[in-house]
Amino acid sequence: MARRIRFNAFQMNTPSHQSPGLWTHPRSDSERYLTSGYWIELAQLLEHGGFDAIFLADVLGVYDVYRKGPEAALRHGVQVPLNDPMALVPLIAHATTRLGIGVTAALTYEHPYTFARRISTLDHLSRGRIGWNVVTGYLDSAARNLGLGQQLGHDERYDLADEYMEVVYKLWERSWEDDAVKRDKERGVHTDPARVHPIRHKGRYYDVPGFHLCEPSPQRTPFLYQAGASPRGARFAARHAEATFISGPSKAVVKRGVDAVRAAARVEGRDPDALLVYAQALVVTGATEAEAQARLEEYRRHIDVEAALTLLSGWTGVDFARHHLDDTIEYIDTDAGRSALASLSAADPGRDWTVREAAEFIGLGGRGPIIVGDPRQVADQLESWIDDTGADGFNLAFALPLEDMTLVVEHIVPELARRGRYDAAPRGGTLRGQLLGQGPRLAPGHPGSRVDIASPLSGIQAA
Amino acid sequence: MARRIRFNAFQMNTPSHQSPGLWTHPRSDSERYLTSGYWIELAQLLEHGGFDAIFLADVLGVYDVYRKGPEAALRHGVQVPLNDPMALVPLIAHATTRLGIGVTAALTYEHPYTFARRISTLDHLSRGRIGWNVVTGYLDSAARNLGLGQQLGHDERYDLADEYMEVVYKLWERSWEDDAVKRDKERGVHTDPARVHPIRHKGRYYDVPGFHLCEPSPQRTPFLYQAGASPRGARFAARHAEATFISGPSKAVVKRGVDAVRAAARVEGRDPDALLVYAQALVVTGATEAEAQARLEEYRRHIDVEAALTLLSGWTGVDFARHHLDDTIEYIDTDAGRSALASLSAADPGRDWTVREAAEFIGLGGRGPIIVGDPRQVADQLESWIDDTGADGFNLAFALPLEDMTLVVEHIVPELARRGRYDAAPRGGTLRGQLLGQGPRLAPGHPGSRVDIASPLSGIQAA
Repeated sequence: MARRIRFNAFQMNTPSHQSPGLWTHPRSDSERYLTSGYWIELAQLLEHGGFDAIFLADVLGVYDVYRKGPEAALRHGVQVPLNDPMALVPLIAHATTRLGIGVTAALTYEHPYTFARRISTLDHLSRGRIGWNVVTGYLDSAARNLGLGQQLGHDERYDLADEYMEVVYKLWERSWEDDAVKRDKERGVHTDPARVHPIRHKGRYYDVPGFHLCEPSPQRTPFLYQAGASPRGARFAARHAEATFISGPSKAVVKRGVDAVRAAARVEGRDPDALLVYAQALVVTGATEAEAQARLEEYRRHIDVEAALTLLSGWTGVDFARHHLDDTIEYIDTDAGRSALASLSAADPGRDWTVREAAEFIGLGGRGPIIVGDPRQVADQLESWIDDTGADGFNLAFALPLEDMTLVVEHIVPELARRGRYDAAPRGGTLRGQLLGQGPRLAPGHPGSRVDIASPLSGIQAA
Repeated sequence: MARRIRFNAFQMNTPSHQSPGLWTHPRSDSERYLTSGYWIELAQLLEHGGFDAIFLADVLGVYDVYRKGPEAALRHGVQVPLNDPMALVPLIAHATTRLGIGVTAALTYEHPYTFARRISTLDHLSRGRIGWNVVTGYLDSAARNLGLGQQLGHDERYDLADEYMEVVYKLWERSWEDDAVKRDKERGVHTDPARVHPIRHKGRYYDVPGFHLCEPSPQRTPFLYQAGASPRGARFAARHAEATFISGPSKAVVKRGVDAVRAAARVEGRDPDALLVYAQALVVTGATEAEAQARLEEYRRHIDVEAALTLLSGWTGVDFARHHLDDTIEYIDTDAGRSALASLSAADPGRDWTVREAAEFIGLGGRGPIIVGDPRQVADQLESWIDDTGADGFNLAFALPLEDMTLVVEHIVPELARRGRYDAAPRGGTLRGQLLGQGPRLAPGHPGSRVDIASPLSGIQAA
């Protein structure tokens, strides 16, 4: 039977996310990111459309590689200003009944003891619908402002990440037994102290002797997302993540990513098919093909090349201001440039991309494909992407968020549902329960389920 | 003209706050703290009653002085489990239109760079209704779990606090000019980079070179609360706070606190009358005096002495388990015990309090008075407390939160309004605008208004 296709909405608490320049569109009202009303309207739309989740990205820093400063990012509103995504979770949770809410939080931004409480609180308030996108890397500018001087080395960062995960697993999974809270008014016993355990963690980076401050939330550990691309990152994802995000411009690139992450999960002793993969895409549609194409042309007129290069420079570490817009990218001869652009040019292998063309590609919908057409054409393409790559669904970027998501909900969801490829009326429950079809808690084989508080370092790595 | 009386609701994201034991009352539904619905219902009630704000306390640690462990706190639910208060702010903001939302956050729990973003986001979402209770001290157990080993010395903690404030003032007040954000679609200019300034802070504790990530929020700096009691704490409050909290069992104790904080504000060059003071109190009322007294007796039957001693031991550092319940407190011969209990016994100077009596006092409504009677009797007492102490209003504790606040709103608010002592229909606006009757921004004399990013350490202390 053909696999069900899943949708996730890729968002950020900022005026302009993956389509820099589109905030200048006449119908853009990007300043609504500052209001509750915008997020509630969007979340209710996504829930109505049967989306798995709204996913809130975050970077906590500024894109300042382009022209070696933050001016271009500010001028073009490239992911700056950027508000805290966590504050949106309680709002969205209250305004919806089953939509998942994924939120990015980088390790090292916050101590695991306070972070664990923050997440448990959100899992309680959302009745088990919180997901956490575990980010181990971050922008240099964020590290500097947090007084971290410079970033840890890449591999050391993952060692710290593994220990961070161990601390939060201990707090979430082992500190409070399921029946610790009694609320026994007769006997005057709120909690049985014998069933609440200090975690006594003493590691290389963290020292947390006490117990978790929160009673067990529906999922305990939030549903875990990750998007690691490097070999060490992929191993981290394979060990911890229950869903991953992949961005690639072609099916070949995405398939390679899907295969790699599933193979790595197998190596870690986990069920590779239980790891969901969402591929980034921008859907541009309308009632007819002509309408969709006209919309795409209209969007393209608002691409801002400098804004796109600001984003691309930040992602790759290459200052594209040093290159002519008509240079072909193969001449950009640095390691970071080569590796980042290799995947870009994979979108159209025979072709010599210029810097301008790369910017125009990135400038609408980011690093994923644009899938354009009438509802049947779009559904055909989405099906073939899923069938050819092995991904489970799409992380949908936007040009105009409410408008694009409305079109997906009104046109694409019913078309896919008609084909038996989309569940437009999911049952609800916790995010993990909905996505993995099991209970609200981590699967038994997951390292968070095996964490042990009897020894200071339980070695979740020693699977 | 007699001064207007202000109400603030004293709350915490936990089953049992200042009246340990009362969660066992048959009409208590303390487990509702885990739900959005509870907080929204409470906030809308308070807004309807013209309250200045809901105030969310926090401790991030466990009361573990009593019997040298956390068992009693857990067993009796003494401020544990304890969820993150920040997550409630967006919910309450969206469910109300003018109620202020004060939230406790201790310095050193979070880096000022990320904290500043968290608060600015909440100030945007609430349209300028966020207040921050600046806490410099914390429980030892919190420090241990954050890997801080042991707390900094008391005075050094305030030096760090001053520098922390300087960093966040620079981010909130100086980084983005008022007209930095243009959103000029024609010219494609989202923000004018020349009007966004890196703060280049380089101090003893923090090093933050960059600019704030958020565009200016309605208040920029949140309305500032503080509750420092020590001489150094009072100086910190006098310098930074726009409102303070005082807990004392008698008018004499509260008056002494009010006079001290206003005198200290004068020394700092600020207008002492612009500093609001809220005194803690529990109001127990009903349609008649008999009804109010019956309610008080009913509440008293649910006081839990061991739970109260757990709280008292945590506050004073004295393990009261080492004393007989019938010992008079004057025999408890330690500095911490003496100083904490001095204020307690001030409630009834002629009397020798036993440990049990102290626990029973603390066990209902915490360290403030219980004001009991029919609406006129309560209003008489509230008026005389305000007139005799110079406080501006009350920080109202509860036994049963929704029930007690409903009685205040239904009986006490109209009675005080009738007497011209309460504004039952405030106009709205930002929290600062509502409380100080001026604009949304810090007053010109406030150190946050004078902070300077031209020098690495602008010396807000050198007023």
